[in-house]
Amino acid sequence: MASRILLINGPNLNMLGIREPSTYGYSSIEDINLELGQIAKEKGVLLEFFQSNHEGAIVDRIHEAYNQTDLIIINAGALSHYSIAVYDALKAVNIPLIEVHLTNIYAREDFRQHSLISPIAAGGIFGLGALSYKMAFLAACELLERGEN
Amino acid sequence: MASRILLINGPNLNMLGIREPSTYGYSSIEDINLELGQIAKEKGVLLEFFQSNHEGAIVDRIHEAYNQTDLIIINAGALSHYSIAVYDALKAVNIPLIEVHLTNIYAREDFRQHSLISPIAAGGIFGLGALSYKMAFLAACELLERGEN
Amino acid sequence: MASRILLINGPNLNMLGIREPSTYGYSSIEDINLELGQIAKEKGVLLEFFQSNHEGAIVDRIHEAYNQTDLIIINAGALSHYSIAVYDALKAVNIPLIEVHLTNIYAREDFRQHSLISPIAAGGIFGLGALSYKMAFLAACELLERGEN
Amino acid sequence: MASRILLINGPNLNMLGIREPSTYGYSSIEDINLELGQIAKEKGVLLEFFQSNHEGAIVDRIHEAYNQTDLIIINAGALSHYSIAVYDALKAVNIPLIEVHLTNIYAREDFRQHSLISPIAAGGIFGLGALSYKMAFLAACELLERGEN
Amino acid sequence: MASRILLINGPNLNMLGIREPSTYGYSSIEDINLELGQIAKEKGVLLEFFQSNHEGAIVDRIHEAYNQTDLIIINAGALSHYSIAVYDALKAVNIPLIEVHLTNIYAREDFRQHSLISPIAAGGIFGLGALSYKMAFLAACELLERGEN
Amino acid sequence: MASRILLINGPNLNMLGIREPSTYGYSSIEDINLELGQIAKEKGVLLEFFQSNHEGAIVDRIHEAYNQTDLIIINAGALSHYSIAVYDALKAVNIPLIEVHLTNIYAREDFRQHSLISPIAAGGIFGLGALSYKMAFLAACELLERGEN
Amino acid sequence: MASRILLINGPNLNMLGIREPSTYGYSSIEDINLELGQIAKEKGVLLEFFQSNHEGAIVDRIHEAYNQTDLIIINAGALSHYSIAVYDALKAVNIPLIEVHLTNIYAREDFRQHSLISPIAAGGIFGLGALSYKMAFLAACELLERGEN
Amino acid sequence: MASRILLINGPNLNMLGIREPSTYGYSSIEDINLELGQIAKEKGVLLEFFQSNHEGAIVDRIHEAYNQTDLIIINAGALSHYSIAVYDALKAVNIPLIEVHLTNIYAREDFRQHSLISPIAAGGIFGLGALSYKMAFLAACELLERGEN
Amino acid sequence: MASRILLINGPNLNMLGIREPSTYGYSSIEDINLELGQIAKEKGVLLEFFQSNHEGAIVDRIHEAYNQTDLIIINAGALSHYSIAVYDALKAVNIPLIEVHLTNIYAREDFRQHSLISPIAAGGIFGLGALSYKMAFLAACELLERGEN
Amino acid sequence: MASRILLINGPNLNMLGIREPSTYGYSSIEDINLELGQIAKEKGVLLEFFQSNHEGAIVDRIHEAYNQTDLIIINAGALSHYSIAVYDALKAVNIPLIEVHLTNIYAREDFRQHSLISPIAAGGIFGLGALSYKMAFLAACELLERGEN
Amino acid sequence: MASRILLINGPNLNMLGIREPSTYGYSSIEDINLELGQIAKEKGVLLEFFQSNHEGAIVDRIHEAYNQTDLIIINAGALSHYSIAVYDALKAVNIPLIEVHLTNIYAREDFRQHSLISPIAAGGIFGLGALSYKMAFLAACELLERGEN
Amino acid sequence: MASRILLINGPNLNMLGIREPSTYGYSSIEDINLELGQIAKEKGVLLEFFQSNHEGAIVDRIHEAYNQTDLIIINAGALSHYSIAVYDALKAVNIPLIEVHLTNIYAREDFRQHSLISPIAAGGIFGLGALSYKMAFLAACELLERGEN
Repeated sequence: MASRILLINGPNLNMLGIREPSTYGYSSIEDINLELGQIAKEKGVLLEFFQSNHEGAIVDRIHEAYNQTDLIIINAGALSHYSIAVYDALKAVNIPLIEVHLTNIYAREDFRQHSLISPIAAGGIFGLGALSYKMAFLAACELLERGEN
Repeated sequence: MASRILLINGPNLNMLGIREPSTYGYSSIEDINLELGQIAKEKGVLLEFFQSNHEGAIVDRIHEAYNQTDLIIINAGALSHYSIAVYDALKAVNIPLIEVHLTNIYAREDFRQHSLISPIAAGGIFGLGALSYKMAFLAACELLERGEN
Repeated sequence: MASRILLINGPNLNMLGIREPSTYGYSSIEDINLELGQIAKEKGVLLEFFQSNHEGAIVDRIHEAYNQTDLIIINAGALSHYSIAVYDALKAVNIPLIEVHLTNIYAREDFRQHSLISPIAAGGIFGLGALSYKMAFLAACELLERGEN
Repeated sequence: MASRILLINGPNLNMLGIREPSTYGYSSIEDINLELGQIAKEKGVLLEFFQSNHEGAIVDRIHEAYNQTDLIIINAGALSHYSIAVYDALKAVNIPLIEVHLTNIYAREDFRQHSLISPIAAGGIFGLGALSYKMAFLAACELLERGEN
Repeated sequence: MASRILLINGPNLNMLGIREPSTYGYSSIEDINLELGQIAKEKGVLLEFFQSNHEGAIVDRIHEAYNQTDLIIINAGALSHYSIAVYDALKAVNIPLIEVHLTNIYAREDFRQHSLISPIAAGGIFGLGALSYKMAFLAACELLERGEN
Repeated sequence: MASRILLINGPNLNMLGIREPSTYGYSSIEDINLELGQIAKEKGVLLEFFQSNHEGAIVDRIHEAYNQTDLIIINAGALSHYSIAVYDALKAVNIPLIEVHLTNIYAREDFRQHSLISPIAAGGIFGLGALSYKMAFLAACELLERGEN
Repeated sequence: MASRILLINGPNLNMLGIREPSTYGYSSIEDINLELGQIAKEKGVLLEFFQSNHEGAIVDRIHEAYNQTDLIIINAGALSHYSIAVYDALKAVNIPLIEVHLTNIYAREDFRQHSLISPIAAGGIFGLGALSYKMAFLAACELLERGEN
Repeated sequence: MASRILLINGPNLNMLGIREPSTYGYSSIEDINLELGQIAKEKGVLLEFFQSNHEGAIVDRIHEAYNQTDLIIINAGALSHYSIAVYDALKAVNIPLIEVHLTNIYAREDFRQHSLISPIAAGGIFGLGALSYKMAFLAACELLERGEN
Repeated sequence: MASRILLINGPNLNMLGIREPSTYGYSSIEDINLELGQIAKEKGVLLEFFQSNHEGAIVDRIHEAYNQTDLIIINAGALSHYSIAVYDALKAVNIPLIEVHLTNIYAREDFRQHSLISPIAAGGIFGLGALSYKMAFLAACELLERGEN
Repeated sequence: MASRILLINGPNLNMLGIREPSTYGYSSIEDINLELGQIAKEKGVLLEFFQSNHEGAIVDRIHEAYNQTDLIIINAGALSHYSIAVYDALKAVNIPLIEVHLTNIYAREDFRQHSLISPIAAGGIFGLGALSYKMAFLAACELLERGEN
Repeated sequence: MASRILLINGPNLNMLGIREPSTYGYSSIEDINLELGQIAKEKGVLLEFFQSNHEGAIVDRIHEAYNQTDLIIINAGALSHYSIAVYDALKAVNIPLIEVHLTNIYAREDFRQHSLISPIAAGGIFGLGALSYKMAFLAACELLERGEN
Repeated sequence: MASRILLINGPNLNMLGIREPSTYGYSSIEDINLELGQIAKEKGVLLEFFQSNHEGAIVDRIHEAYNQTDLIIINAGALSHYSIAVYDALKAVNIPLIEVHLTNIYAREDFRQHSLISPIAAGGIFGLGALSYKMAFLAACELLERGEN
């Protein structure tokens, strides 16, 4: 059976390409999804996308993934830094997790340098722009192939 | 007139029984509500249930309770620890309040050991699993009987 | 072309007049909007109102304002103090910003004395009750007239 | 064999009813013990009472409980907040534990908002006055009945 | 009888227009006083001006205002952040108070983000340059008209 | 009726004269009590002395003073800095209180620079050696004469 | 030769009797000086008074006392809490020092609970109102009589 | 004359062997005392034992040791971490001191990683179980032989 | 000309496979280098390896890379967390940088959760074991191909 | 045209030679000024001296230097550590700045180890006594000769 | 087979006897090694010595000990307080560990009161000078004899 | 006999002129040494140079200086901020010390604003670029001439 990967993007990531492009780059979220979708197709992996600016909707979506998804890739955006609800949801469904950040969060505001999600992720990638997503997706595929976490 | 009690459950409590059962126990929220509902019936108390993963929906529901509810029992889950919006809503409606936690939040992550809601509650019960809810409900009934808050 | 100003009110501000009136005063949000609306009419400024108890809805509304609004006046209420998502949305649309608080947040709870929004606002007004909104609106008009932000 | 429950009250709780009655209420410790004693009798549970203003005496009493008691209900009063000796004694005897506070310690002085005992209790009840004790005792009985701790 | 308003400017505000104009703007203190003086005249309000680089002189001037002034508008400049003497003087005379800052102090050095005066002011205005003063003065007039403080 | 004053000395004050005399001076506690006793006699004030190294015994003694003493002078020694039990006892009996320290506690170890008792005392005297007690006693007499506390 | 004592009062103490009388009492500084002056006369001690709202003037006055004064009694008011200049001046002249506070500074704002002067004083008296000065003066006399400091 | 060594054990050490044996080991305090007693006999050293769960009793016992003991070995247990009274008593008698801990306190709870006693001890031994006592005793003997402290 | 990438491994990474394999995995550094070397060969990229347990040697090696290397991949191991010297060396040579960690440093000891290097890296990858290196290398190749850094 | 250098000395530096000579040395401020004046003469530099114990007077003097001075050498004494007013004045006039301290402020009280002025100075010299001034003056001359700041 | 013990001394311990003898004593490292060597010989234990001022060399030496040593005694000197590299090396080789300090590190500079190594040692000895080493060695022998660690 | 001065430069100072020239300037370490060497020659002072990127090598070099050098001038670079080993070495040899920094470390990263070496230096010079070294050397010569340290 094909592996199922869920890519979750949190608040304001729908504004990619528009939002502070010198910080976040000029690719839109659609550009990124398109590129990942093509690789997923080549690799025979089922890749679903979800973006919301609503914490509650993200929690709901994570709950839906319970027993339906093999791995979650998440860029929770601002929620990474204060949403214990998202953190709890991710722990509740107990699905392997890779964290992604477009920017180098460790070179920005103090409050952005701590992610609640990092400690419960298998691992993460930050600062490489759209490439962060691609690398996370490739790593996810390798992990699932190996039957690892 | 019968006393009206509102029981609010916050994010991820819909996952009870599924979510980390070694931490949260095997009872679902429906099991708990059923048990409380039966006691309420026996005692002639009107007990309403509300659960949401959305902070905004919980704030809306608290506002609705204004002048319609005699006492709120709340397990705000993750929101207990950072939602000033829920805290403000509870202060705004000025209804007696009992706080509940299934787990012993003082034996868990640092960020879970402080509740914004505790200082504005009449009192609270933590760590007793489903029994936390039952005890909170029984205490609520006694307080309302005595005309206390 | 007429200047367009968007006034955003965050969680619990729909309870104004009801909520802790000794702290927040007896004017409702409708009273305030009415007064501002009349001044706007006199000045020939387009003034839109938005209030929500949902962080996600506020983020969505800010995104909509992109290129459609000349200045945002915001009282984010409780969200001022923890919503990095609202902060990110405001930075993403890059629209001049005036912050408003009804109460003197520096004379209240510790957690209410720090606003994430203040550092990215042009300026702000606090503690003057309904007058805070009026002064913010008048200042906004002057700033837009001068072509300043 | 009947369950054995030990109720320990720490420093100054002998002054209940006299001590700051607007904070602690008008029931004396004897009133509370009497009420609990009657319930215990009805339930066929052995309930012992101990109060002392001496940390060492409380430590000694906890040691005596080793293998002689099925559950301890404790309101360690001021000692909750600094007595590592009491904390160590409770860990040493390894008996299920329910913590009680008459007042809402989270709404009082900073130093009273942290209890050393909370993290090693099964759970706790705070802020409900004399009702805190009653609820703790009822919960203790349920826990022992179920063979839980 | 005409309302009496006292406008106090603290250290270095005599350098306005010269001092870091990209931060503080090109208006001098005389320009601002002139504009406010004209509005005061129109409104029939008595407006007095005081500026000093000496903490002691500001304390003395505040004492003089005792029973002679209906409202103080103060930009205490650097003293806002450490002068408990000015804070005590303002509390001693017990006159309604509006705080003003030309710049957005919440976007600057850490030590400038906390004002001792804010908690004892009715309210305040920051970040709007010379407009901060004008808005404070208009607000002061409205407050005095309404007999509020 | 003669005023009744209780002088409480806490742990290690029985070692005065022996204990670190370069810090605490060469007078013994008996010397100090003798001097105070003579003044009390002259003034017709009933002065009782109590010293203990046991926190519990001090708490017990404070309870005994309830309704039997007009003013407490206390040098709680080391307990000043951590005994919430003594603090609670003093609040429970609600008797006017003057705090005494032989040494200048603000010039010593960090942990000795904060006294739990200071905020609930009417006032206090520190650093004047045996003279601290004498001045506290004279002040107590004046306060009682004036019917102040 | 008669002992020479200098009594220094810092900012806002000229407002005594007017300033927050429920906190500071109804005696004016003149009342206090008069009372102390009479005792000084009886004891044959030279007592000088100095009050200023200007930190620099207080520093100048302390320098003048060099070799001209046997003991300083100081209530530096607000300056106690931040004026390193006054602290340095007092260390520079190396004259025995007694610190006085009218109010119980340990029961007030956080910033008022730490005095820079305390660690370099011989001792101090707080919270006893006008009596604080009298006791400090009597203690000063005893210390000078004994040739102590 | 034979050297006199006093071994003091604080709260809960009477529970050794029973208390959390995986942490504290299976030797009882009697086992340890027996072993040390035999070595003391061989070396001709007078070794006294004292254990109490009462802080006040430990303070009293330390006072008794004044001029009667050449060296104190102390495991103050929980009191190591908060009893300023025991710290003061040890400073008051001014007897050479070796601190002992059975467990590695630096690998345990945060509050157990700081000992008030360490800075005033000659030295200390931690983490070696019953061997900690033996090594402390042997070191004490060597120090006394060499006339060192 | 072929791109030149330098892979630096810091202290203890020579122990990979031996060192805490449940934490760090069973691959040795040679295994990882071999795999990366083969990919480098396929891609026509020059890949150099350097490992040292000596901070100074790592600083020297970074200096050598000045103008000789197009991108540095670094797992500085323990030095990530305190070596300002390595941080300064990396800033001095001003070469694009990708940070790698085998383990999820955000789920480990407090001191390991902050990396001095992160803020000056383009980006980083953590927690994916040997895969962290592979992904970093692939990302490096893409970045160099695009002429980005 | 000759370079113009202004040397400012803050509070208590008029007491040099008298004030704690073991800390500050035996040279008076006049000795230092004399020595610097002679070097200035030899070098053809205009050197002005200013000392005050009044923060406001120092702020005034700095303002006067605007456009009249090429470089300021300042030992602000105690004001270095808390006077934001002096810091603001120095920023307002935007004149190159060298900071001087007689003593090694990093080896003294905690509050003296942080200077507000350091971050806005070109550089500084501390701990070398009177030599600190001489070196600062020589450095100032070299900087002005080179047209550097 | 004989037990193998490795004694590691860190930076500056080669200066023993020269370095601050009032703090560290007059024995050189050679004196200590000689004494331990003799005891080792008597006990039939293989004792190796290593001292270096180079962190990297100590890491290398610890790696060499892997599978070649039964117990490490280490005084890492200054590195105890910041070298995560040494900490990691010790964890990597997983050999029983006793920590030694000549001085009482808890009575010295703040930064010397925390050892990274303590939490991963079996136990430790501090403050007893050369005797610290001897006691550590004797304890090590007993532990190895008992087959404990 | 000629005075002997040792100039030590720490990690990355060999990169001067290359490393971030806008921060550190364009002079190389050789340029600086050349200039100082010439002045030394003129003054008849023996000046030795040492630079290393290895902490251990710097510690070794400091030890060599014991009894061979009259004064050390040190710019320990990054090691200033964390190397307790270098700090200990400097204390061990007990040679007068002047600290140098090219840049204004108080205007840079937080971690660079605290130097371990400052408190044990006689004094220091920061922020003046190559001139910092020259001034330090001239000050060193004056100090040695006067037989001061």
